[in-house]
Amino acid sequence: MQGDRNKILVDSVKRLLRRNAMHNLRKIVEKTHAADLSRVFDFLTMPDQHRLFQMIPDTEQKGVLFSEMEEDTFLEFAEELALEEIVAILESMPNDDVADIIGRLPDEKSDEILQLMQKEDSEEVEGLLRYEDDTAGGIMVPDFIALGEEITAREAIESLQKEHQDVEMPFYLYVVNEYDNLVGVISLRQLVVVPPQTPLKAFMTTDVFSVKTDMDQEEVARIVARYDILAVPVVDETNKLVGIVTVDDVIDIFRREATEDILKMAGVGEEFVETKSVLKSTRIRFPWLFASCIGGIVAFFVIGSFEESLKQFAYLAAFIPVIMGMGGNIGTQSSTIVVRGLATGRINVRELWSVVFKELTIGIILGVTYGVLIGAVAQLAFGKIALAIAVCGAVLSSMSLAALVGSLVPMAFAKINIDPAVATGPFVTTSIDVISVFFYFMIATTLLGL
Amino acid sequence: MQGDRNKILVDSVKRLLRRNAMHNLRKIVEKTHAADLSRVFDFLTMPDQHRLFQMIPDTEQKGVLFSEMEEDTFLEFAEELALEEIVAILESMPNDDVADIIGRLPDEKSDEILQLMQKEDSEEVEGLLRYEDDTAGGIMVPDFIALGEEITAREAIESLQKEHQDVEMPFYLYVVNEYDNLVGVISLRQLVVVPPQTPLKAFMTTDVFSVKTDMDQEEVARIVARYDILAVPVVDETNKLVGIVTVDDVIDIFRREATEDILKMAGVGEEFVETKSVLKSTRIRFPWLFASCIGGIVAFFVIGSFEESLKQFAYLAAFIPVIMGMGGNIGTQSSTIVVRGLATGRINVRELWSVVFKELTIGIILGVTYGVLIGAVAQLAFGKIALAIAVCGAVLSSMSLAALVGSLVPMAFAKINIDPAVATGPFVTTSIDVISVFFYFMIATTLLGL
Repeated sequence: MQGDRNKILVDSVKRLLRRNAMHNLRKIVEKTHAADLSRVFDFLTMPDQHRLFQMIPDTEQKGVLFSEMEEDTFLEFAEELALEEIVAILESMPNDDVADIIGRLPDEKSDEILQLMQKEDSEEVEGLLRYEDDTAGGIMVPDFIALGEEITAREAIESLQKEHQDVEMPFYLYVVNEYDNLVGVISLRQLVVVPPQTPLKAFMTTDVFSVKTDMDQEEVARIVARYDILAVPVVDETNKLVGIVTVDDVIDIFRREATEDILKMAGVGEEFVETKSVLKSTRIRFPWLFASCIGGIVAFFVIGSFEESLKQFAYLAAFIPVIMGMGGNIGTQSSTIVVRGLATGRINVRELWSVVFKELTIGIILGVTYGVLIGAVAQLAFGKIALAIAVCGAVLSSMSLAALVGSLVPMAFAKINIDPAVATGPFVTTSIDVISVFFYFMIATTLLGL
Repeated sequence: MQGDRNKILVDSVKRLLRRNAMHNLRKIVEKTHAADLSRVFDFLTMPDQHRLFQMIPDTEQKGVLFSEMEEDTFLEFAEELALEEIVAILESMPNDDVADIIGRLPDEKSDEILQLMQKEDSEEVEGLLRYEDDTAGGIMVPDFIALGEEITAREAIESLQKEHQDVEMPFYLYVVNEYDNLVGVISLRQLVVVPPQTPLKAFMTTDVFSVKTDMDQEEVARIVARYDILAVPVVDETNKLVGIVTVDDVIDIFRREATEDILKMAGVGEEFVETKSVLKSTRIRFPWLFASCIGGIVAFFVIGSFEESLKQFAYLAAFIPVIMGMGGNIGTQSSTIVVRGLATGRINVRELWSVVFKELTIGIILGVTYGVLIGAVAQLAFGKIALAIAVCGAVLSSMSLAALVGSLVPMAFAKINIDPAVATGPFVTTSIDVISVFFYFMIATTLLGL
């Protein structure tokens, strides 16, 4: 297991730091990939982080570490580093990662860094910082290979040998016309297998996918995944090629977005909190529970208003959990399906009514089924048909309503461009709780004549 | 929006099919990527699916369609196709995708197909079928480029031109020794930029990641993501290179696993149900609701056993929703963090006690906070300090217990190799409901002397 290896690594590093066994520590650092070292950092004190960091022999590896560190860990860590050292490391990194990191730093610090960087790099980074973080422009790398249509395969190979050494993922070569508009693409592989004198335009693929700089990153990721490509070119409003989004960033987007959605649905913020301190986690989890607390207090007043009925027939209370539970659970099912469906593109926000109608139908079918089942239990327990009908009716209305609210709220949120994952948490759960209980007591008191 | 484009495509195709406008339909089919057509299929009747399918001019595109279709849609669709046609299409596809498809078919049909296929292909596919579906062996492609250490860059390029035309993603060339053991890797790019007479061993990277055939696919995916590589080589128990796992499959794994986890946590099966029929969805969602129904009925008997107390003090019932709600919500938070943490590798199953202890601590802190808050509301409403303390105690014990159960159950499941996502659904939610209610009434009746 990868996890096991991490644990072993963390334990060894900690032990060696404690023993001050610098020689052995240096050996471990040298043979460990920076992506693995970054996980160790979360478990170390600040001084130990710096001791370990200074042992990394290679500036590029330090750059990988920068990219892989948790945002909070990095910010605290960077506080203690000399600006010159940060600049040297940033200059060894791909510029899209540099833009990400600089975007996280306080403005003052990032300005100083940009001034210290080589002009060419800092201009590129500033160019990237112009775009929104979560758009194609914000995640693209400006390092790509673009060649003219008339160039031959041999000339293209020569240009690869002479320049473009810093291109991160040179698997596609883009072909542009005199206005820098994207007109075709060739793979490195095609370049190698055609006769050397063939001009690029004779064998390039003209049917090339591209995305605009302002396209949402999830949308970009879905395109890369759908067409199984390794990079997608990004063009500006004049159709000029300005960058590419590579598949490694796409993987990160998918993983991050999935984690974000899952955490948001459960009301635990957007970022993974388990690695944070107990107090920080508590603070992040507090507000969602507060929404649920308010809902519970409202339900308390609702039930309180039926005190007289409860006094006459105390058993009414015993059905509260099953009615709330059934409503809550089917509501969670509906909203989860909608949220994940929207995220993966299986559900389209334009299908609002057909999705909601389908969920409502399922809610009614399941509501009738469980209403009859739970009503039958009530009948067996009390032999009071009015109570059985009231329980059945309450389960049915609670479940249908929950399926309706659970699907409608996230669909409606998506329609007005609010993240539907947020809707699944407090809104849906809390309102279903309150409404279920209210319906139950209304139906029960009416039918039982209380 | 991609979704919008899909909707437009589905609508146009349906309209043209209705009008029998074959000429226009053919034009649309020809210019649409098969990955997009596959989404249209879900919305068509079987005869229309076949009419559309026969219009696809290219066997390879038909293959892409096969891979992209929903499993159920594909099975029904394949029923109606001649075996010879299936075989012709499969032979145009990468063998890992063929193995996936054949694995889905009934045994009898898959045997017939394997017999009809060309010997070389069918042997490869059968080789792949030997491995478990969700291991490195099950998802690898056997098409990779392996060359000897002594070969020069020029010879390597020549071999690319002459053979290996069918290799799916020729971005890395693997270097093997006389026993076919993996000893190094070079990128296509390196090959192009070194002097032609350089032997591979002079410039290959010897520090090459590889995985064993039986490694779990999620583990493989995490390695590819962590090290930002485009493919990872797969070796058998004798360290012989047998295949590679490519980054496009890794993306699919991450997306599928995330969707599976999310759906399982909400108790709606493993596969996305929104595209299925109402009855099918209902059937899939039924069992989880049944678990919650049983839990609700147990809670009913628990509350029923306190009937006498309720008769004396009906307001007791009014606190049931808030106590259940707070327990349920913090339980969901804890189990979501654990399940997603395990899936992304942020939490290690070996850290069981430290994770559970942390969650319990958070549960107690939040439990005290909300216990005091809700207790204060009770005090304000009734001026009865015993009731306020009972409510406070019930909230505290319900929330701490929920955090404990919510983190312990998925951790324990993971420890014994049961999917922790399953644990989050019925088990945790239902048991927390029942236990919360029980604690509440125990504490309340004791303190109030009922």
